[in-house]
Amino acid sequence: MCAERRSRRVAIVSDAASYVGPNVARLLAQRDHDLVIGDPADGLVEELEGLGASVAVVDKVRNLANPESSEKLVQAAKDRFGRIDSATAFTGQIVVGRFLRSTLDDLRTATVGCIEAPYNFLRAVVPVMVEQGDGQVLVFTSAAGARPTPGAPLYSSARAGANMLVRNVADEVVGKGVQINAIGTNFMDFPEFLKANRAEEPEGRARVEAMVPMGRLGTLEELAHFSLPFVDGTSRFVTGQFIPFAGGWV
Amino acid sequence: MCAERRSRRVAIVSDAASYVGPNVARLLAQRDHDLVIGDPADGLVEELEGLGASVAVVDKVRNLANPESSEKLVQAAKDRFGRIDSATAFTGQIVVGRFLRSTLDDLRTATVGCIEAPYNFLRAVVPVMVEQGDGQVLVFTSAAGARPTPGAPLYSSARAGANMLVRNVADEVVGKGVQINAIGTNFMDFPEFLKANRAEEPEGRARVEAMVPMGRLGTLEELAHFSLPFVDGTSRFVTGQFIPFAGGWV
Repeated sequence: MCAERRSRRVAIVSDAASYVGPNVARLLAQRDHDLVIGDPADGLVEELEGLGASVAVVDKVRNLANPESSEKLVQAAKDRFGRIDSATAFTGQIVVGRFLRSTLDDLRTATVGCIEAPYNFLRAVVPVMVEQGDGQVLVFTSAAGARPTPGAPLYSSARAGANMLVRNVADEVVGKGVQINAIGTNFMDFPEFLKANRAEEPEGRARVEAMVPMGRLGTLEELAHFSLPFVDGTSRFVTGQFIPFAGGWV
Repeated sequence: MCAERRSRRVAIVSDAASYVGPNVARLLAQRDHDLVIGDPADGLVEELEGLGASVAVVDKVRNLANPESSEKLVQAAKDRFGRIDSATAFTGQIVVGRFLRSTLDDLRTATVGCIEAPYNFLRAVVPVMVEQGDGQVLVFTSAAGARPTPGAPLYSSARAGANMLVRNVADEVVGKGVQINAIGTNFMDFPEFLKANRAEEPEGRARVEAMVPMGRLGTLEELAHFSLPFVDGTSRFVTGQFIPFAGGWV
């Protein structure tokens, strides 16, 4: 590992193409982080460099259910920067449909996408941080893991498993200087959610918004702001928490 | 109420003399907030004004168990700025000793200090925010409300009541544009905690630190950073949450 003394922190953002990944990467760059990012959106690297960040790009790592994805991200951070101060992962494979019509294959799809994916990420990142004696991990899961979810019972159950996995791993390394937390979202305003919920047109959107106690969808920008204290080094005393970010739905 | 269009947000910080109050006030001032502060520490007003904030001071409001304290803070915000964008309250009355040796008076001390205090604050602030259709409330409680706490069973129980009060009030106004959340701390490094736990000398401090899974006390500065997204207007989709900030103790 590189022994160079660094003034900027080093953050992994597993998926910089979609969801809140680009927003988190931008805020981290603004707050003096260099970045290792997976599959960045067009133009994002130049934007982050314009904010003063050094950026290492890793391609084809979006699917964290493949253990190699996380290993590649970690290796890139070691090779380029010699350490990892924080690491943010985006996980989850939606599986819809009633339990009474489900199959074991449906369940396996949910557990691989929702539990194995964060497991792989934690398994790759946490040992490095334990060795450093320092690090912050944030895993995005789903608020569906915190309450029974009509129409997505297998997904809800797998998410609950992931949320508890985060808490267990956090407890296991709590004395090692490593924080591990989860934020579980629902009802976020981004293309994949809108498409999956047939909410791309005004009528469909109104139907979905009516399910949110706050009466609206959440924005990626406000999610990024909420997430930053978990990964930007300013606040190091919270670990093993699962926090819903879902407009009052949980 | 003043109808002037304001570019800076307005925040109440109920106690700006101790605990995390001064730190939260500083960060809010840096992030374009004017402030209504209770009983400020020496020099704090000048410091906040130096950061660009207009500051209204309200004296003798530290005890939120007195309903007038919150009413005075709210009235000052209305008079000076015409609105309240966010409001942060610090509550709690420690009561120690075993249940089997306790009295009903002990319980009442705990419920007044831990439940009535946040009730009074919420009762004064929330109606104004509901009328505005907008606002953020953060109540500091204790992580002791989230698990049985040896040596402080009545305090732990009253704190649990407060944490659930916050969640209930948040649910009641969830459609009104008002967010209400609680952060529950334990093992924070500040004079009153150190004194109450006989941790002012190295030996006593080591004994207390050994109770914290992270092996250290939390700092007020990192607590302030963690708290800001709940009150600075950047993140508006989280409500009804209780979040422990306690070094892995909960």
